[in-house]
Amino acid sequence: MKVYEHRVQYYETDQMGIVHHSNYIRWFEEARVDLLGKLGIGYKTMEESGILSPVLEVHAIYKTMAHFDDIVQVEIKVEKYNGIVLELSYEVKDKETGEVRCCGNTKHCFLNREGRPLSLKKSYPEFDKVLYKFSQTA
Amino acid sequence: MKVYEHRVQYYETDQMGIVHHSNYIRWFEEARVDLLGKLGIGYKTMEESGILSPVLEVHAIYKTMAHFDDIVQVEIKVEKYNGIVLELSYEVKDKETGEVRCCGNTKHCFLNREGRPLSLKKSYPEFDKVLYKFSQTA
Amino acid sequence: MKVYEHRVQYYETDQMGIVHHSNYIRWFEEARVDLLGKLGIGYKTMEESGILSPVLEVHAIYKTMAHFDDIVQVEIKVEKYNGIVLELSYEVKDKETGEVRCCGNTKHCFLNREGRPLSLKKSYPEFDKVLYKFSQTA
Amino acid sequence: MKVYEHRVQYYETDQMGIVHHSNYIRWFEEARVDLLGKLGIGYKTMEESGILSPVLEVHAIYKTMAHFDDIVQVEIKVEKYNGIVLELSYEVKDKETGEVRCCGNTKHCFLNREGRPLSLKKSYPEFDKVLYKFSQTA
Repeated sequence: MKVYEHRVQYYETDQMGIVHHSNYIRWFEEARVDLLGKLGIGYKTMEESGILSPVLEVHAIYKTMAHFDDIVQVEIKVEKYNGIVLELSYEVKDKETGEVRCCGNTKHCFLNREGRPLSLKKSYPEFDKVLYKFSQTA
Repeated sequence: MKVYEHRVQYYETDQMGIVHHSNYIRWFEEARVDLLGKLGIGYKTMEESGILSPVLEVHAIYKTMAHFDDIVQVEIKVEKYNGIVLELSYEVKDKETGEVRCCGNTKHCFLNREGRPLSLKKSYPEFDKVLYKFSQTA
Repeated sequence: MKVYEHRVQYYETDQMGIVHHSNYIRWFEEARVDLLGKLGIGYKTMEESGILSPVLEVHAIYKTMAHFDDIVQVEIKVEKYNGIVLELSYEVKDKETGEVRCCGNTKHCFLNREGRPLSLKKSYPEFDKVLYKFSQTA
Repeated sequence: MKVYEHRVQYYETDQMGIVHHSNYIRWFEEARVDLLGKLGIGYKTMEESGILSPVLEVHAIYKTMAHFDDIVQVEIKVEKYNGIVLELSYEVKDKETGEVRCCGNTKHCFLNREGRPLSLKKSYPEFDKVLYKFSQTA
């Protein structure tokens, strides 16, 4: 599967001359949404089907600094998936040099529109199958 | 009425060492929401009452540069209000020197939850009165 | 020249369920940077050569609403270029339907590292030629 | 010391109707900068003195959801400080209810303008004293 690429925008830099650290958290989301799209269960479709998937936890370790106009690649792996909780890990690399910029993790659950937790396995087996399959291969 | 104040955050700067221009548009919104709150018709209350007020137009002229940790003051005037359309003007000044950083305007209409235009005058006279009164004094 | 495309991110939406209006100002910048890159005078190169190009003015008219996961296309035209001032216009369209989401303009000057205005024509004829040529064709 | 307060802005919400999770990372920074200011060693002063303090790591656990127009309070504690590395913990609470919205940590080092690590203890004893003293009391 093609890795997600993001070109660093000017508005993502700060006066230290590098990317502001909060943007990596947004790139994790960009890559996550991109991944779901490629798996055929786009997050938009999920929301329209009545599934919300809030972020429960986020962790990022900044290794080296990304700069304006760099292209970064974000690779995602499933660390845990049991139909109720999804844990992903991320590696953000510079496209040109391969240098790792940032590693991270996010943890998610699934809620219905009333905000009650749901099991994808029980309530949305078609989404569950896709996520389960991907969690086995990645 | 006390003018709205905002302290420039680090994440609002860019690698030019100044505030990224897109943030002024957000400060306009901060000041607008603050103003409605002070008028007793907070935007949250408006939305909960079924009124959406999208931005139809925004214009900003950047005069001088704001920097990290500066405190800016945003003053708002009503340029036009007729119950259907609201036009506001903004002046962003440095608190310490009084120097003008940015002038701007925004234009808004009012929609119901279905996205249809509504006249505050007809449908929400209590909000209309407040805005009308403020438009006369400011 | 290939038009600039941007996929709407989740973090660009607001609780109205649409893209927050401030993001269009950022997309203007994304498209502008992309354009300079395609012209062979990337903004990064310009800055490294000692040219800063701050935004003097921005104007946006919001026509219809972009939503999460939409792909928008941003087309840029040069409205004015004289070596000292650059004025651009933007049209943001939905890729699928062609519907116009937003029109806008930005105005820029050129400064050296000390913040003094400079004429690209005099000081950086190689950049000037490219911008002038593009201003004639677009 | 007065706790840092932030009113949730409209542009900080997303289409889930809550604050986008990336903003908490920015609030950590707001509170951190505010704290340094109150301690008399504002981050602006530190940067002007030649100290950069990049974020090495960030961790956030989202407990409950903040909404538009809420006022949140951010409390900071020093978890570790040895002159070379600074670790802070954060608690974001709703001002009205006291409910915890988010807990988190950040880890920082100190660099000189050339990007080389420095010991505040050795190179900037006046800053070191303040941070050390605060780390003992908080």
